[in-house]
This record gives sequence, C-alpha cells and structure tokens, in this order.
Amino acid sequence: MENEEIVLAEHPSGKPTKSTFGLNDIDMPKAKDNEVLLKSLYVSVDPGMRGFMDKGDDDAAGTKFELNKPITSRTVAQVIESENDDFPKGTIVHGRFPWQKYFCQNPDAMEKVDPEIAPISTAVSILGIPGLAAYFGILKVGAPKKGETVLVSGAAGAVGSIASQVAKLQGCQVVGIAGSDKKIDYLKKDLGLDAGINYKKTEDMEKAIKKACPNGVDVFFDNVGGEIFDSALTNANRHSRMVICGQIADYNSEDKPQGPRSLEALIKKSAKIEGFVVYDYQEEFETVKKQLGDWLNNKELHYKENLIEGFENIPSAFIGLFEGENIGKQMVKVSDEE
Amino acid sequence: MENEEIVLAEHPSGKPTKSTFGLNDIDMPKAKDNEVLLKSLYVSVDPGMRGFMDKGDDDAAGTKFELNKPITSRTVAQVIESENDDFPKGTIVHGRFPWQKYFCQNPDAMEKVDPEIAPISTAVSILGIPGLAAYFGILKVGAPKKGETVLVSGAAGAVGSIASQVAKLQGCQVVGIAGSDKKIDYLKKDLGLDAGINYKKTEDMEKAIKKACPNGVDVFFDNVGGEIFDSALTNANRHSRMVICGQIADYNSEDKPQGPRSLEALIKKSAKIEGFVVYDYQEEFETVKKQLGDWLNNKELHYKENLIEGFENIPSAFIGLFEGENIGKQMVKVSDEE
Repeated sequence: MENEEIVLAEHPSGKPTKSTFGLNDIDMPKAKDNEVLLKSLYVSVDPGMRGFMDKGDDDAAGTKFELNKPITSRTVAQVIESENDDFPKGTIVHGRFPWQKYFCQNPDAMEKVDPEIAPISTAVSILGIPGLAAYFGILKVGAPKKGETVLVSGAAGAVGSIASQVAKLQGCQVVGIAGSDKKIDYLKKDLGLDAGINYKKTEDMEKAIKKACPNGVDVFFDNVGGEIFDSALTNANRHSRMVICGQIADYNSEDKPQGPRSLEALIKKSAKIEGFVVYDYQEEFETVKKQLGDWLNNKELHYKENLIEGFENIPSAFIGLFEGENIGKQMVKVSDEE
Repeated sequence: MENEEIVLAEHPSGKPTKSTFGLNDIDMPKAKDNEVLLKSLYVSVDPGMRGFMDKGDDDAAGTKFELNKPITSRTVAQVIESENDDFPKGTIVHGRFPWQKYFCQNPDAMEKVDPEIAPISTAVSILGIPGLAAYFGILKVGAPKKGETVLVSGAAGAVGSIASQVAKLQGCQVVGIAGSDKKIDYLKKDLGLDAGINYKKTEDMEKAIKKACPNGVDVFFDNVGGEIFDSALTNANRHSRMVICGQIADYNSEDKPQGPRSLEALIKKSAKIEGFVVYDYQEEFETVKKQLGDWLNNKELHYKENLIEGFENIPSAFIGLFEGENIGKQMVKVSDEE
C-alpha cells in the first residue's frame, strides 16, 4: 500500500494557496506499543485552522502547525490493523488526526463512531465540533428567547446552518446572511429561515439588516466579522447578545485589520459581545450529541456536507472555504470503508 | 434676585469649547400648579453628557440637548418657595435639573436628600449615579471573584475610583490607569490600589499592563476605550469580562474613530465585552445607596469631589473633564444652602 501525507510547506501570507501545502510520499507506518493502524476516510477542513498556520511565536496553546510536519484536523478513520480488543479491525473512529492516508494512533486519542445513529462522516460535521459549536454558541452564549430575532452570518456554512436551525427550533425569527443567491435559496427553502441577505449583492448592509429584521436584532451569531459585524451591531437591540463564533473576514489579513471603534454603542444598548470555544462545554458533549442526533433523525435538523473526493484535494477543499463557495460542511472523502 | 441660565449655544465639533455654551440673564421663574421654586446648590458635570450635545437626528431616547435651551444635569438644589407640604421650604433635593440658578420643578421630578447620611453633594456623586454606575458595573457586569485581577481605566475619576475600591472590597488585586503621577499617588495611597499606570508616561501600554497584572486581567472596567482598551484586551485572561462603562477617548471624535478589529481574540479567551446603563438596575438603587452610604461612613470607601465654585464656571468644569485633570467627581458649587 502506498502512503501519502500533506504538510505545511510554508506559512501563508494572507490567503492560503497551493504552495502553502506539500504532498509527500511516505512509508506505511508501523504501530508501536498500544497503537493501532488507521486509514483516513473523511477529513474535515475548517476555517479556524487558518490561525494554526501562522508562525508560532506565540503558541502557548500548542495548536500551531509546524513547517514540514503533517497538518492535523478532525478526521473519521477506520482501524485496519489492531491488537487492541477494544478497537478491533474495522472499528470506525474519529479524532484529530494527521493528514496522512494511513497513520498510527494510540486509542486514547480517538473516539468510536456509532454508524447506527447517522452516516459516519457526521462524526466530524453535524455530530462533531461544528454541530456542537453551533449548539452551545447559540443556546448558551446567545440564549435567544422565543419570538426574538436571531441574525446569523455565514448562515449556509457548517456552523451557521446548524445555529440557524437550532434558533428556529427555539421559536425565533431567524435571518441568515450568506454570499450567493443559491445559498439564500438554501437558507429559506431547505433550512426554513425567515429571510436571507446576500451580502455580495447588498450595497448597504445596515439597511438590509434593518429591513430583514424589522424588530431589530436580539442575537447575532457571527462567523464572519468585519463590516457585517458593524452593521449587525447598529441594528442590535437593547440587551442584545453578539456571539463571536468565527471571524473569517479577518483570518487572512496580513496587517491587523482596522474598523470603526464601536464599543460605545454597547453602553446605551446594555449589549454584550462574547466569544467562546466549544471545549468550554466539554462535559455536555455526549448529551448534546444525542440531542443533535435525535433532531437529525426526526428531520428537525437538516444538514449538508460538501464532499470533495480524493486525499490530494484536501488543500483545495481548505482553500475553498475562503472563497465562500461551500454550502454546509466542507469535507474530503479520502477512501471507502473496508 | 437675579437669575441666569447656561444653554447649548452650538453643537460642538470635537471637543466642547467655551463657544459651545451661552450664558443668559433670565427672569426669576414663577411656580405653576404643584411646582416648587428651587435654588441650585451643586451641579454635576459628567463625560457621558458629551453625547447629548451632538445634533439630535437620532434622538429616540429624547436625551439630546436642544440649541438655545438650558442644558440639564444631575443637580442638588434647595426648595426656597413651596406650597407643597411634602417638599417645604428648605428641603434639599436632587434630580436632573436645568443649568439655571433658580428654576421651578414638579416634586415628581426630584428626590429628597438626607443630610444625615453624608454631605448633600454626595447625592449626585458617590451616592448618586456615578457611585451606582460603579457599583453595578463592577459587581453585576464584571462580577470579579476574590483573588482575581481587576484593571480600571479612568481610575481616578468619579466612577473609576469607586469601582476600583468596590473591587478591592471583594478581595481583588486592583490596578488603576490614570493620566498623571499625582493621580497614581492618589490611587495607591488614598484608595489602596495595588498598582497604577500613568498612561501619559507609558510608551507601551500592553507591556505596562502585563507588568502590573502578572496574572493577566480578569475584569477590565473601562471608562476610556481606544488604545487602552486594545492593550487591556491583549492582557485579558480566559473567561475575562470587559465592562464598558464609558469611552471618553471617543466622545469627542469628529470622524468615527478607527482601531484594530480585535473581536477574534474573544474566541480563544471565551471572553466578553459588555456595556450597561445604570438604569438597568433601578429597582436596586435604594438598597445600594444604603450600602454605599454604610461603606462611606465606615471609611471603607474614600471619595473625592473636585469642587469648582461659581455658576458661570459650569462650562469650564465640563470642558475640564476631557483634559483629564480632575481627581474624583467633578462638581460645581453654585451657592450655599439657606
């Protein structure tokens, strides 16, 4: 069997490009100690990984990718050689794994995937970190009440599409912002949102939000930042909550991006802007995965994976995240289950 | 008796100047219906009033000052003519009153001041809106826990000096930022803060905060905004809370002030930025005034009023707020009690 890996070839300046990545032929790995041998099935690419590609001067969290080392991301894989009775050959698992077709890992670093609940790829999409981030961000940080207006940016993306629907399930008016008419159609027809704003066709976002949210914005779930954030804040109600889930507009900036200083607006509005990481809620992961799984099986939650085929296409799948073309969760299918 | 008033003569562009204000001789007013005749004793000037001086295109709150009409602010006054048995001649009251030496008001618009608790001027300083804003902002929004580090900007000012001390009373490490060595002395010696930073003598605020707050910042109580906010955010800990009480650095900007977009930092830090207005907590005003009065009488709370004498000096007292010269609450003494 041949093996390949994708490494960080250079730190991107601005948007990542093909030359950010390097594809190497490598040997098949050999399991040591308690390790098992795994084959990649589905690799998740996420905008938040962009930050790990910068030079790691300030890497207290130990999350930065090293040059010429394989990139890692949430991956669904299958055990193909094992002497561990808990993880026998054939077991489907997920974890943060290297971008390698075949790799060895200690079972401590992986969790089993139950194929009965949903297709296995969902373990790194709707039932994985993106679904959990959407759930906790909207319900714990945004905490919308029935009848309130929730505005979501990046609403057709992996996290935004789930956050929007969870807000709908709370009985909110939900308005999504996205970057194409096709996405707006998806938001309204497939996800059942109340309105959508195509920011690429909108000259005055402030007015567009005002029109789509006539009662103002109570919760803004933000994946984008930049001018979209500014326009949402202008339309924010008293006691509103701006949830900072992602700021994709800023991830590729070479210089520190600048914008209007708008914190003064928070005073009169008694409003808050709050960031979160999904791991703040780790204790509740299992309960919430079950809730998401139930909603999924009851068809109360709609999800979409944008599946790209082929290991060698992981870099372009990642680069595509910043082109704003994907609807739903961007994923790469590396190989079939055995 | 002669009477005078101070009106908004023109909308300031940038910093308010003498020509922002007009001083007029006016007639002695005559009480109508249930009104009583009052004499101004102490007039409070507050940075937040600057916003009410701009053109009132967007005056949903009805707080903007009108051209050629008297400016209003929190004032301690004495009833000098009355047919109302509840507010007899001699009663000391406070309320939001016009900048007039003598004026008439309906008793519904005023509250009595109890001279037994503290000097009557405190009704519009430590026992008034500034003290209440400090209390609710630090305890309800910032909610510092014992041992946490609290950083306060504008720490020698009316609100900042109280917020700092209330944080000390919670058992926090408290670091104050102010604009002169005299103020830093005041913070450390009179208010008992753990450290002070004179931002006017500091080239690198980020480093200075890091040095003064070696465990990072858990709560930032911000009266200033601008670059001081940016530097505080860089030093903010995970789960930290940035309380936006005032943004005096921006109040006089003619153009919308610009700064780095820094909301991305909130994600990793799971941090929040929250604004508030003191009236959010109106139901608790009486309880908290009593608490502040008790602390004051037990000498657990130190306060300072920067008293300027003379009705005609109200404009310069207000302008002085933006020069950063005052320690404690900026007040104007208009006349003695009868």
